[in-house]
Amino acid sequence: MKLFEKISIIGVGLLGASLAKACRKYNLVEEIYGFGRNRENLEKAKSLGVIDHCAEDLENAVRDVDLVVLCTPVARIVPLIESLLPHLKQGAVITDVGSVKGPLVHQADNLMPEGIFFVGSHPIAGGEKSGLDASREDLYVDAKCILTPTPKTDTQALEKVGALWESVGMDTLTLDADEHDFVFGAVSHLPHIVAYALMNTLGTLRTRQDHEVTAYSGAGLKDITRIASGDPVMWRDICLSNQVHSLDLIDRFQKTLGELRNVIEKKDGQALEEAFAAANKYRMKVI
Amino acid sequence: MKLFEKISIIGVGLLGASLAKACRKYNLVEEIYGFGRNRENLEKAKSLGVIDHCAEDLENAVRDVDLVVLCTPVARIVPLIESLLPHLKQGAVITDVGSVKGPLVHQADNLMPEGIFFVGSHPIAGGEKSGLDASREDLYVDAKCILTPTPKTDTQALEKVGALWESVGMDTLTLDADEHDFVFGAVSHLPHIVAYALMNTLGTLRTRQDHEVTAYSGAGLKDITRIASGDPVMWRDICLSNQVHSLDLIDRFQKTLGELRNVIEKKDGQALEEAFAAANKYRMKVI
Repeated sequence: MKLFEKISIIGVGLLGASLAKACRKYNLVEEIYGFGRNRENLEKAKSLGVIDHCAEDLENAVRDVDLVVLCTPVARIVPLIESLLPHLKQGAVITDVGSVKGPLVHQADNLMPEGIFFVGSHPIAGGEKSGLDASREDLYVDAKCILTPTPKTDTQALEKVGALWESVGMDTLTLDADEHDFVFGAVSHLPHIVAYALMNTLGTLRTRQDHEVTAYSGAGLKDITRIASGDPVMWRDICLSNQVHSLDLIDRFQKTLGELRNVIEKKDGQALEEAFAAANKYRMKVI
Repeated sequence: MKLFEKISIIGVGLLGASLAKACRKYNLVEEIYGFGRNRENLEKAKSLGVIDHCAEDLENAVRDVDLVVLCTPVARIVPLIESLLPHLKQGAVITDVGSVKGPLVHQADNLMPEGIFFVGSHPIAGGEKSGLDASREDLYVDAKCILTPTPKTDTQALEKVGALWESVGMDTLTLDADEHDFVFGAVSHLPHIVAYALMNTLGTLRTRQDHEVTAYSGAGLKDITRIASGDPVMWRDICLSNQVHSLDLIDRFQKTLGELRNVIEKKDGQALEEAFAAANKYRMKVI
């Protein structure tokens, strides 16, 4: 038996198309409906067999399905839920792949009518490349997926959504939605903000001969700024959706950097070496 | 004919031992003297054939040689030059591999007696792994080497040192020593300081269940913090030697990050997207 008869994927980009491909590979669903703003992209997804049906509109994309997976930028998720709710059949489950969960999950909970169920998900998968062309059936294999149930979350719906992500190869974990935003604000959003700020600091610097200083960069700068290639719209939405934690984490980082600055200004070699050795030790845990 | 008859490598770690191996490979020198603080390491280097002579002391390491290459942490370079100068023969050339050049090059210039020549070098090569065991004959191939001549630099000595680095596979460029420190303060030292500060910010954060938040990290955090694994003593010395530029660059970065913070606080989506798009564009030039 299939996990779901019919599912709808809204947003057929890297995450959405990869999920569709994985659902096919593991034979998890009967039919996949796809919908998104870019018609050409949808038709390409259909012609490649990534989705079965290229829906005309949101209503047609969702009205017969058992599961809707929202794979759009995070700021679009709540407005889309509001638009699609009137068209869902009883028993339908909605989930999403948004990188920020707190405000979204609480708003979604409050929107749910009797017999329609929402479960927040955040599959930790992606890459610098986005879009249908970058999608692949193994994107989710061996990666983590965070589920963010609330006291209102239906247990069966939670199990179904968990089973979906596990069936495409993920390890599922649950976190409170606000705690999720603090944790991913720390390990993902802050590093992106820092990488963007570093790239913007360096990008404008020039030598006396008016050469760009970045022409002298080596492997270290490439690595630290790789994530500064992330999609501006996606990261704009993430930072604004997770505003409270973003600001708090930037403040914590600026304080730590300010302390390092003081130690360099005072030429306190011992304190500087200790700070760098502590970073070495913390970094070991990231590997 | 060999480039040099006898050379001395002070500090037989990653850079020094790799240079010795490359000199052998390309048959550039007759004999290699090695010296350093760690006797066991030196003897291992000799038994492996990386160096020919394991000198008893600094005097024995340098008195017969045509070229001394200082491959120690940057803070040790000027004191070592002072100690070895009395033992050098006329015509000897000294160079170094220090990552900070301004103060060092000017102090070295002022120390040079008649008939002994100093040329500052900064081969842009390395890696997180340090020490003899990590050394390899191709470390320098296709990498850049910055030479930092001053008005006092002897032209022949500059040519010889340039020929050494080119013979082991490097592209040589010249920069004014202070400009070098600004440029590498920007593309190398600041990114390291930022990576250390980021790691120290995240390393102490815990979830409500007292788990380390870094347990949730993905590929992005790994990349951005890779250089936070750099050797604390080496980076302490670099930051303190390049203090003026380090502080200036930290200030520039804090200002840029503070501006991003303000934009997030004001929820100015357009300005945030533009800042991220600018970072994307600058990042393209680093690739």
